[in-house]
Amino acid sequence: MESWQTSIKALTVDVFGTVTDWYSTIVREGERLGCDKRLTVDWARFAKAWRGGYEPAMGRVRRGELPWTKIDALHRMILDDILEDFAIPELSENERSHFNRVWHRLDPWPDVVGGMLRLKSKYIVAALSNGNMSLLTNMAKHAGIPWDCILSAELARHYKPDREVYETAAHLLNLEPPSILMVAAHRHDLEGARAVGFRTAFIPRPLEWGPEGQADTAQDGDFDIIARDFHDLAAQLGS
Amino acid sequence: MESWQTSIKALTVDVFGTVTDWYSTIVREGERLGCDKRLTVDWARFAKAWRGGYEPAMGRVRRGELPWTKIDALHRMILDDILEDFAIPELSENERSHFNRVWHRLDPWPDVVGGMLRLKSKYIVAALSNGNMSLLTNMAKHAGIPWDCILSAELARHYKPDREVYETAAHLLNLEPPSILMVAAHRHDLEGARAVGFRTAFIPRPLEWGPEGQADTAQDGDFDIIARDFHDLAAQLGS
Repeated sequence: MESWQTSIKALTVDVFGTVTDWYSTIVREGERLGCDKRLTVDWARFAKAWRGGYEPAMGRVRRGELPWTKIDALHRMILDDILEDFAIPELSENERSHFNRVWHRLDPWPDVVGGMLRLKSKYIVAALSNGNMSLLTNMAKHAGIPWDCILSAELARHYKPDREVYETAAHLLNLEPPSILMVAAHRHDLEGARAVGFRTAFIPRPLEWGPEGQADTAQDGDFDIIARDFHDLAAQLGS
Repeated sequence: MESWQTSIKALTVDVFGTVTDWYSTIVREGERLGCDKRLTVDWARFAKAWRGGYEPAMGRVRRGELPWTKIDALHRMILDDILEDFAIPELSENERSHFNRVWHRLDPWPDVVGGMLRLKSKYIVAALSNGNMSLLTNMAKHAGIPWDCILSAELARHYKPDREVYETAAHLLNLEPPSILMVAAHRHDLEGARAVGFRTAFIPRPLEWGPEGQADTAQDGDFDIIARDFHDLAAQLGS
């Protein structure tokens, strides 16, 4: 273990893509919906379009074109658009609302629960996600994610990688930034955290965007730690 | 189960006194400190003085005599005062700081963990405390309290029973007040929650202020539910 690691007290962990597999879950729920409603839809393309609408929607909030809006509501705006793009015939309000909450029902990557239990024995392990508090709470129950606490962009009313999100997290954890390790599968999130003084750990999730998708990668030296998965992260952190 | 109970989705739960036994924990840690430092102190009276300073300190924040101040800092202000009142000779800064964090190390009442696990199978179970987020997070790790999420007065920058605390909790849980049940051993907390439309459950903790202390009591009809402990609450809620 390197010497800077001994001052780490808490891990703040990204959720969509890093902890949970949105692609597989949405494809699976889409296929089930398609089967029930006798639809022919390319659900892999649908999942990527839904997730693909997420950065632009947050950008609208960031630029002030939209007031502060929870991810639940952004997901719903994107969903309403892409249901039209994919020519999916009328779903009832109940069906749309239920499908929109697929983001509350995402499955974890298989290493997450076991690795996190190891990390929790030594560190505070907190979610730090752009997802809203109720979404993250429901997801943790669904997926069995053993967070010590849930922190959200919603508490800062800013979206990552805005610095306010990381600063709010450090303030609520009552820790100095260099004693917090941001864990994510996305370079821009780690770069945002590093800009306010957090340490950074990259976990690649090559299948985040499905078998043909393009996921972020990192090389030795890009971040403080590069770990294969949460078990490897626990091992590298001596827990 | 009564019909209004079927619309309950989440429990928001008070912590100091309702979930954790501050009196016994402080007396025990005080006695240990007294033994180490060869002090003769009435630790029962000390514990009650410390906790007794809490409402007046929050009152100073509520009246604007102090800016927003975390409970950790209020506890420390009170501690510094009572160390003098009890003529406890100089403790080092490290010793004071460690003793102040006894509030992070409170033990749960014996029914809490088991009863809460039952409740979690059916409801979202969230802390809603005047304690700050880092205090509540450390306490949950220490005591094994299986919160689904931790909510704090700190997120509203108001102390209970100010309505902003309950309103912020409902907003973050994305629930209407009548689908939230506030659980507490204190009448004023439940009355504050009821004023914004929450349902209310009283759990008596007759030993909260020690064997000779005065704890709140309630009679049938005062609140929506009166439960002996968290197991009884789970039973009354069919979980």
